[in-house]
Amino acid sequence: MNFSDRLAKAIKEKNNPTVLGLDPKLEFIPDSIKKACFKDCDCSFKAAAKSIVEFNIGLMDATYDIIPAVKPQVAYYEMLGPEGISALNQTIQYAKQRGFVVIADGKRNDIGPTAEAYSCAFLGKTSLLDTKRDVFNADALTVNAYLGIDGIKPFLNDCTQEEKGIFILVKTSNPSSGQLQDMKLEDGRRVYEMMADLVNQWGEPLIGDCGYSSVGAVVGATYPEQLKTLRERMPKAWFLVPGYGAQGGGAKDVAAAFDKNGLGAIVNASRSLMCAYKLDFWKDRFTSEDFREAARAEAIRMRDDILSVI
Amino acid sequence: MNFSDRLAKAIKEKNNPTVLGLDPKLEFIPDSIKKACFKDCDCSFKAAAKSIVEFNIGLMDATYDIIPAVKPQVAYYEMLGPEGISALNQTIQYAKQRGFVVIADGKRNDIGPTAEAYSCAFLGKTSLLDTKRDVFNADALTVNAYLGIDGIKPFLNDCTQEEKGIFILVKTSNPSSGQLQDMKLEDGRRVYEMMADLVNQWGEPLIGDCGYSSVGAVVGATYPEQLKTLRERMPKAWFLVPGYGAQGGGAKDVAAAFDKNGLGAIVNASRSLMCAYKLDFWKDRFTSEDFREAARAEAIRMRDDILSVI
Repeated sequence: MNFSDRLAKAIKEKNNPTVLGLDPKLEFIPDSIKKACFKDCDCSFKAAAKSIVEFNIGLMDATYDIIPAVKPQVAYYEMLGPEGISALNQTIQYAKQRGFVVIADGKRNDIGPTAEAYSCAFLGKTSLLDTKRDVFNADALTVNAYLGIDGIKPFLNDCTQEEKGIFILVKTSNPSSGQLQDMKLEDGRRVYEMMADLVNQWGEPLIGDCGYSSVGAVVGATYPEQLKTLRERMPKAWFLVPGYGAQGGGAKDVAAAFDKNGLGAIVNASRSLMCAYKLDFWKDRFTSEDFREAARAEAIRMRDDILSVI
Repeated sequence: MNFSDRLAKAIKEKNNPTVLGLDPKLEFIPDSIKKACFKDCDCSFKAAAKSIVEFNIGLMDATYDIIPAVKPQVAYYEMLGPEGISALNQTIQYAKQRGFVVIADGKRNDIGPTAEAYSCAFLGKTSLLDTKRDVFNADALTVNAYLGIDGIKPFLNDCTQEEKGIFILVKTSNPSSGQLQDMKLEDGRRVYEMMADLVNQWGEPLIGDCGYSSVGAVVGATYPEQLKTLRERMPKAWFLVPGYGAQGGGAKDVAAAFDKNGLGAIVNASRSLMCAYKLDFWKDRFTSEDFREAARAEAIRMRDDILSVI
């Protein structure tokens, strides 16, 4: 089944269009896990990587029956070097065992032959002499299209051949996203609108039975006006919507991303799920040691919050 | 010493403004290395990673007294998973021992807190409980500024505090780079010109004694007209110029990137140095087993080719 239809199926099964962002900073992780992992060495990447995997497993165990997808943010693993990348790999493989759709958030981009190498890493397979092997084997990857179609083509090939997906950065959630993305072109379009048109064009051959394409778009919850116009502009693109929770976006901000059947978008929360125990809403009930229960409670609250507006 | 001045010093010492691109595909590597590394297993990422490290060491040993900098392309390591990232790390550490300036080519980009994690990985340090540790500790990183200043700021901090550098994608070397980058804005500028203006603005506080900033720009050799106008537009930015050799750029195409003292740019070649033994120019003299000698001969030829026009 192609990525788009797999994503639709997973969302429908859980009746929940949300994503658990796995951006595990050490400061998020309860002391009991860190103490156990760091007991032999205070300065080991291996211990940090082990802590992260345990934390992620706890979060996934607590939410796998509620949340349909996870989004590991590659940077937080890369900052621990090779051991961190091993933790990323373990996280992705565990997520797949638990039935999550896995969206690797890498925002990768390069010229064609190099984009092909990135696609092998995250979506396709790497050739080793006579064999081809999966590397991280995520279901989808976020990508940046500043280089144009050459740098996107290899990912599109894996969307077709390996039934994977991509989410192209269109309008990002950060405060300065407008600096380039909102610039007006001579033809009247904003840069993010032009990017949206490319998402439509590139995604057209990859539209699934659910009506959406395996080529989606990243559109931040923090810009609800643009989210609304972009929904109209990209009627066939899945929206991966970051910015809910810790970045300030709420349910009413993301409502416009969904169609009348409650499909078309998947809303990510990272910190507000990983550190639900710190939220004003939950902090009296949970400590960091209860991060699993807190994440589960917040996952249900977030699901119901979003379902209430779509 | 800040990155910009270190780069200028390295170029002057070797009298050579070129970069050895380390994008090691398995097919580039001679059979003798692969046979030795893969003897126990045909399908091991570890064997592939070991082959790559041996190949890179051979290339660096053959050129360290001629070429001032190396540019490992992260994608080719990432496609081998954690073992590949370990090979990247070994390559960077060996390059530093050999005295190369190391430019990690990752084109990383994300919102602020995540860009900070990438900067820890490549340029700064990662906090592990009470200690801070170097991760890859490259001298510079290529970055993509589609997200605006928020996503660049963490790298700028490490440029200041850790005396590192960044090269921001302005006009890339690939055929479709114009699809977004050449679009004309309402104010008359092309997108790549607007990006050049941001490079100037962001780089202004980081100008070294050599007259150039630690915030540089990626400008492809394959667009000599734009290269020329961008040189005038960014008088204080180091240009990292890909596209020489295998991508079709020649010495006359890159000449305009340099100032009258032969500074201001550093020209990368990857395939034409790594696989110099395959070039028409050298293939009668060298086999793949002579890749070191071929790379050295081509490094000298490339240096003299570029020096002849600046």
